[in-house]
Amino acid sequence: MLALRLIERKRDGGRIDAGEWRALANAYAAGHVPDYQMAAFLMACFLRGMDRGETAALTEAMLRSGDTLDLAYLDKPRIDKHSTGGVGDKVSIVLAPLIASLGVAVPMMSGRGLGHTGGTLDKLESIPGFRTDLSLAEAKQQLETLDCALIGQTAEIAPADRKMYALRDATGTIEAIPLIAASIMSKKLAEGLTGLVLDVKRGSGAFLPELDRGLELARTMIELGADHGTPVVALLTAMDRPLGRACGNALEVEESILALRGEGPPDLMSVTYALGAEMLVLAGAASDHDAARRRMEQAIGTGRAAEHFQKIIEAQGGNPAVVDDPALLPQAAEVELYASARRGFVARVEPRAVGRGITALGGGRTTMEDSLDLSVGFMISVRPGDWVEQGEPMATIFARDRAGVESGKAALRTAITVADEADPPLPLVSHRVTAAGAELLVGT
Amino acid sequence: MLALRLIERKRDGGRIDAGEWRALANAYAAGHVPDYQMAAFLMACFLRGMDRGETAALTEAMLRSGDTLDLAYLDKPRIDKHSTGGVGDKVSIVLAPLIASLGVAVPMMSGRGLGHTGGTLDKLESIPGFRTDLSLAEAKQQLETLDCALIGQTAEIAPADRKMYALRDATGTIEAIPLIAASIMSKKLAEGLTGLVLDVKRGSGAFLPELDRGLELARTMIELGADHGTPVVALLTAMDRPLGRACGNALEVEESILALRGEGPPDLMSVTYALGAEMLVLAGAASDHDAARRRMEQAIGTGRAAEHFQKIIEAQGGNPAVVDDPALLPQAAEVELYASARRGFVARVEPRAVGRGITALGGGRTTMEDSLDLSVGFMISVRPGDWVEQGEPMATIFARDRAGVESGKAALRTAITVADEADPPLPLVSHRVTAAGAELLVGT
Repeated sequence: MLALRLIERKRDGGRIDAGEWRALANAYAAGHVPDYQMAAFLMACFLRGMDRGETAALTEAMLRSGDTLDLAYLDKPRIDKHSTGGVGDKVSIVLAPLIASLGVAVPMMSGRGLGHTGGTLDKLESIPGFRTDLSLAEAKQQLETLDCALIGQTAEIAPADRKMYALRDATGTIEAIPLIAASIMSKKLAEGLTGLVLDVKRGSGAFLPELDRGLELARTMIELGADHGTPVVALLTAMDRPLGRACGNALEVEESILALRGEGPPDLMSVTYALGAEMLVLAGAASDHDAARRRMEQAIGTGRAAEHFQKIIEAQGGNPAVVDDPALLPQAAEVELYASARRGFVARVEPRAVGRGITALGGGRTTMEDSLDLSVGFMISVRPGDWVEQGEPMATIFARDRAGVESGKAALRTAITVADEADPPLPLVSHRVTAAGAELLVGT
Repeated sequence: MLALRLIERKRDGGRIDAGEWRALANAYAAGHVPDYQMAAFLMACFLRGMDRGETAALTEAMLRSGDTLDLAYLDKPRIDKHSTGGVGDKVSIVLAPLIASLGVAVPMMSGRGLGHTGGTLDKLESIPGFRTDLSLAEAKQQLETLDCALIGQTAEIAPADRKMYALRDATGTIEAIPLIAASIMSKKLAEGLTGLVLDVKRGSGAFLPELDRGLELARTMIELGADHGTPVVALLTAMDRPLGRACGNALEVEESILALRGEGPPDLMSVTYALGAEMLVLAGAASDHDAARRRMEQAIGTGRAAEHFQKIIEAQGGNPAVVDDPALLPQAAEVELYASARRGFVARVEPRAVGRGITALGGGRTTMEDSLDLSVGFMISVRPGDWVEQGEPMATIFARDRAGVESGKAALRTAITVADEADPPLPLVSHRVTAAGAELLVGT
């Protein structure tokens, strides 16, 4: 009866109060509200919207539907980074060990890939033996010793969100800003953070491609953080092309290792440093962005960051030798260059087409039940605006067989456009948003 | 995948084409689309609307999801009446035998009560032995011999509608005109009619209280009929107070029997004759409304209509003696008068409050699983505008025990308002709508 009343009220444009959100989230998590009622309710929320107070109440309700990490006893800054997701986005794998190596705790809870975007958990599992399914107790212990744990959303954390997210995925109710913000923040606030940095992607490959929607999502999450006294800073970064060169699970871990060794591609390093600087300043571990950047460069230059990643891998059951020898990661059976059919400017490298290409190769999911071939993917060496000659290699395809190579070629033909002219790509890091407002960093 | 694509398109204000409606209805009826996806889709339909072609396609899809009566071989007019439902609305029980006694086939498929409205099937089952669960074959046979069958929606008829209606009831997606119209018309068109008369209720006790919404529903159903070459005429009738005096299952059958004998209350007779005249004219069994009315009065005056009801009852396993002796119907253990606490005008007899009162007595349903006490209810002898003295009886309560009597009194205190002034009630039959347009019959 409660659910039906709330469905009808939201359908008619009414408001759900905090106690009702809590009752609904708890009843749903406990199985007392059927999926079909929740699906109708979520569609009504999608189409009618939710105000600031309702979004806060849903976040709170989902957060309190389960356990939290409760890390206050660590008595040091605890900062996480969250990305809204994209193609080639391996920043978490670089940042977590880098920032932890500088004495800031990074309790990083990540997700799996779905649709065209990859997931940090899948990527990490390409490291032989690596376990992402630590219990909350194991994660806490590792945070004490290594300042970092790289884990998935356990069943204890925000179970109402977990169940609701799966339902939203199947019912066309994902892309609503209040629902997205509440889902992300209920999990992140459960990590017991002292600060959070958000990487909100924009451009054709982003979850919310439009700049104004990205800014609105950033502002909403910043407000939800403020409700809990957790400062949140968001950077808007480009996802009109993949980030870095590697796209595919093991390939991205290899590129992350190179980045930790100081050999990462420039765009990946820029985004990593920009987000890392925000983390260090939020943590009080650097006085300003320049000082933060110097600390990160030093951690990479001295090998301390890569070494810290080795310790984390070892602690989570993985083979730490991959950091010195990435060839220990899963290797694709077939490797083939992909060359340009004409001379001209690279006009587009379309992330969604690349992501779908990875899925076609067996490296991505269309449903949560799919199992992955972690070795496959692409290394894309060109960026929008680059000049290429006919026959010049633009990418390398990593596939499990010849059929995979062909499907990879087809995907790249769709993804990479070479033309007589090319528009400039989006600026890599365009906006910085804090509780004080949004700041334009470069021309949009 | 199909369902998700259609959910997203409807959510974003797009259109579903005829083939897609058919595929969706069939997949849902077959259990290949889960309830939660259909619930999200229906909420998107509710909030985004459906155009004329989509409503027609959904009607067609649900109609074709099952069997139809296919009565063309009867080679005579086949006319049904459908009401959008109200309190005290026993018109079907009077009209079906009356019109069938005049040689027009009436294949009447009715529903059960839910919420504040009663259902014809429940009422009929108060006749000892009466079976409403005839198979389609039995119904066809009875239509050949008696021109009438009073049955429920069988599992073979429009199964997609049957399943979707139950889901809409649980997910706050009932009151959307395209969905209501498609649901009603998919069942009615499955009866193989040559014409259909609709009783669209308006006023506080109606499903859609507002006049403009009632008119829109009427027009939508008339258009859906036209698509199938089935002429449809709609009358808008008053449901700002109960129809007739009897409210409750067995009590309404008793009043229907009195009506068939020429002893029905005037408002019930007016609505019955108005709808019956439309049926007879549509059937070509009368040249105009006056001639139709004379034929009906004659059928009642000669006893032929009541006798025909006896034959139908006997054919469907019931005890035909109830027509001569209504005391054979279930009798309530406790009967008590309800008097006015003050002198004044009867300002309101609120149908929803009366309907909820019947449910509180045990005679109505809040879920489809509830079983009913068919003997309970109210006889309400006053109408809005009547003058009453203090202590003057306004109604009789029929209950199973003393607690029931008390709950009945409480319901009537809410339902019947006596005041110094009374606004005039809605006109009994206010509008007539056909494919040619709407015609105002009296001042609204």
